[in-house]
Amino acid sequence: MARVLTPRAEDFPRWYQDVINKAQLADNGPVRGTMVIRPTGWAVWERMQADMDARIKAAGAQNAYFPLFIPENYLRREAEHVEGFSPELAVVTHAGGKELSEPLVVRPTSETVIGEFMAKWVDSYRDLPLLLNQWANVVRWEMRPRTFLRTTEFLWQEGHTAHATEADARAYARLIHKTVYEDFMVELLAIPVIPGRKTKGERFAGATNTMTVEAMMGDAKALQMGTSHELGQNFATAFDITYSSSAGGVQHCWTTSWGTSTRMVGGLIMVHGDDNGLRLPPRLAPVQAQVMVVKAGEGVIEAAARLRDDLAAAGVRVRLDDRADVPFGRRAVDAELQGVPVRIEVGPRDLAAGNAVVARRIDGTKAPVPLAGVVAEVTAALETDQQRLYDDALAFREAHMVDVPTLGDAIEAAQTGWARVPWSAVGTEGEAEANGKAVTVRCLVRPDGSMPDADDEPDLVAVLGRAY
Amino acid sequence: MARVLTPRAEDFPRWYQDVINKAQLADNGPVRGTMVIRPTGWAVWERMQADMDARIKAAGAQNAYFPLFIPENYLRREAEHVEGFSPELAVVTHAGGKELSEPLVVRPTSETVIGEFMAKWVDSYRDLPLLLNQWANVVRWEMRPRTFLRTTEFLWQEGHTAHATEADARAYARLIHKTVYEDFMVELLAIPVIPGRKTKGERFAGATNTMTVEAMMGDAKALQMGTSHELGQNFATAFDITYSSSAGGVQHCWTTSWGTSTRMVGGLIMVHGDDNGLRLPPRLAPVQAQVMVVKAGEGVIEAAARLRDDLAAAGVRVRLDDRADVPFGRRAVDAELQGVPVRIEVGPRDLAAGNAVVARRIDGTKAPVPLAGVVAEVTAALETDQQRLYDDALAFREAHMVDVPTLGDAIEAAQTGWARVPWSAVGTEGEAEANGKAVTVRCLVRPDGSMPDADDEPDLVAVLGRAY
Repeated sequence: MARVLTPRAEDFPRWYQDVINKAQLADNGPVRGTMVIRPTGWAVWERMQADMDARIKAAGAQNAYFPLFIPENYLRREAEHVEGFSPELAVVTHAGGKELSEPLVVRPTSETVIGEFMAKWVDSYRDLPLLLNQWANVVRWEMRPRTFLRTTEFLWQEGHTAHATEADARAYARLIHKTVYEDFMVELLAIPVIPGRKTKGERFAGATNTMTVEAMMGDAKALQMGTSHELGQNFATAFDITYSSSAGGVQHCWTTSWGTSTRMVGGLIMVHGDDNGLRLPPRLAPVQAQVMVVKAGEGVIEAAARLRDDLAAAGVRVRLDDRADVPFGRRAVDAELQGVPVRIEVGPRDLAAGNAVVARRIDGTKAPVPLAGVVAEVTAALETDQQRLYDDALAFREAHMVDVPTLGDAIEAAQTGWARVPWSAVGTEGEAEANGKAVTVRCLVRPDGSMPDADDEPDLVAVLGRAY
Repeated sequence: MARVLTPRAEDFPRWYQDVINKAQLADNGPVRGTMVIRPTGWAVWERMQADMDARIKAAGAQNAYFPLFIPENYLRREAEHVEGFSPELAVVTHAGGKELSEPLVVRPTSETVIGEFMAKWVDSYRDLPLLLNQWANVVRWEMRPRTFLRTTEFLWQEGHTAHATEADARAYARLIHKTVYEDFMVELLAIPVIPGRKTKGERFAGATNTMTVEAMMGDAKALQMGTSHELGQNFATAFDITYSSSAGGVQHCWTTSWGTSTRMVGGLIMVHGDDNGLRLPPRLAPVQAQVMVVKAGEGVIEAAARLRDDLAAAGVRVRLDDRADVPFGRRAVDAELQGVPVRIEVGPRDLAAGNAVVARRIDGTKAPVPLAGVVAEVTAALETDQQRLYDDALAFREAHMVDVPTLGDAIEAAQTGWARVPWSAVGTEGEAEANGKAVTVRCLVRPDGSMPDADDEPDLVAVLGRAY
């Protein structure tokens, strides 16, 4: 097979861009740093959205929609927040044919405008918790854009909630972090993630706690796949989100926010992709099985259509490729590039023997299967290969993560993977030193892997690595 | 019952705004002309999206996503197109902390940027038809905004397709117009619509043909609920979208575009709402049935929860309202306002008699029903009331539409409804005269109601009315 992609081992970033181009996942947009998400890429994002949206609703949050444009003064109300964003903002100064009296910011996040409306909507403790989520586009001007990972415009969900107590806000942020983010990434994306707490220096502007899910990419660098923030009463104070308690007094709410974005598509590519392209986890894949007519021949198209119908009836997301006029090799390469988990190839010779060929993208096997056994073979393969992708990614991470005792060891180990090191051996000064060498503390975890309640808990472990 | 809304007959526009506020469908955003879509309103839009999206996919189109920002020069390429939009544009002049060398337009539609990428993606006849759709926010600066109907930012789907022949483009635009727009509006929204052809003066900028679906609101004014355009080779020429045909020559494609927006939510309110609030068509309603605990009492909550479970098991979208500490009257008013098709009220007295009360929002009936019969009663009511809403809206339209012979008659009749008049009695001059009196030609139809192929077909009928 002709070489289609730059090999991963040769140049990982170029391989990544090659996969995006050749699998037709996305193109660069006309404005620097923006992207066009093509149907193949969009279908993946749409599947992510559907599954996460169901999880968000199961956690009790409701979807809503807030405006794209935010008056500039909103961002100034929370000082730390505006500092965090100001160099990244896109600003509308003209509209309706004239200059505006107040410039409008294109939302970099909807925190501030949602805060404003929460203040209007929350009156008494009966209105709490208020659990909102929004699917939207946001804009943050990127100096060094990279498709899906850092784009000037990206798509995301942002959850924003208000609670009567700190304990309730904390519990809710953790519920989302576990059931919507961690479980989704493990179960659907087949990506092992480390949930942990960000250090003070890595926290979201205005947050009292930022939790992250960190995944190891195929080059052993880290990608932050999603974050959940406790905002304490900071935003509620800045936006005057108050409630009258059952006892009668008026108090500020405790708020949270949490987000994941199209960046996850980039993570998916970098975790599971190989030198032949993308490999999609079966549970996520928009097309789980592609029935392919190898070439025209007696009964071939009919047999392929029947397999398509049988697979669809068994609940498999299946596509029939009967373009017998396009060379089979090219179509097979495209299916590999796009990461379709299973191909069922139907050609005259195999058909004469009562078989089709089942080619599995994930483990690379390819074997003839009697027609009557294809559905069972495919459904079993989809289950097995979902697990296999996860196991492979976990094994890769294990092989590239070491426990070390000192900061120096950790910085060295982080050149080729992740290092786990006692947080007491790093601290804020050590973190600055590591940052100077392009190594960051990805998160803090307890020795048993659970989520810390505070930065200063004893025995915390810091996970260090290079990151996207 | 205390008066919650301005009566429709007293002040229709104020009633409309009251419904939106009191049913908590939307709020005004902080920037003039923008809106915040609240969870109750969003759930309606989400249901619209889901059904339409399935129809769009069934018609063979694929979703994709194109950037929010468009370089200003793109809009200049199709002269008529930029003229149509320039006073409505919002312009980003600063980003990333400095002034941009070229201002960016916030998309008023993605026509131009999609044209640019179609040109890249289409090479040969094998790449055609290229059938794309996008769900996105767009911005058109509104001088006289009205929630859902005319907002500076709105949400929509925009389909864009490229074809090898005019006939194929035309057939596809019609397929969408019928199966995605008309059928959806009739079957899901229970809104009778008139599909027709726009006059030359009312066409989309750059189109060779614009088809519309027009609905009559509760004040007998018209709302354009969706449009489908044939763009001829105009956009393909401006953006150089060409293909090599099977015979070998290079030709320009024929393109179409088609869109519907959050404006449909406004139409839904204005067609079906009454003096007690919104009335949602059961097939569309996010919550079809609300089981309500009237007040606490022996076995009440258990019985209500059982009914909820039974209804859910029967496939009904059901919500349990067990807030016995909130006055029942207030909760019932809220359910009426939000247009929940059926309420099932469970209280101690009825329960003692083995009954629950089934209250139907659409026909206003209310009667006790034996517990064992509730599921059957509710599912039957949902079917009946879907049809009833449609029949009522159709009867209202019939009662407010007359056939008249002359333009003068038509303009007069259009003060209180719609007039059907021979297009030959109107013509371009007559259209200008009507426009001067705030009456527009909503569309042209054939005498048998079917879609014309051209403006100059003999015997066309013009539908005239006032419009939103």
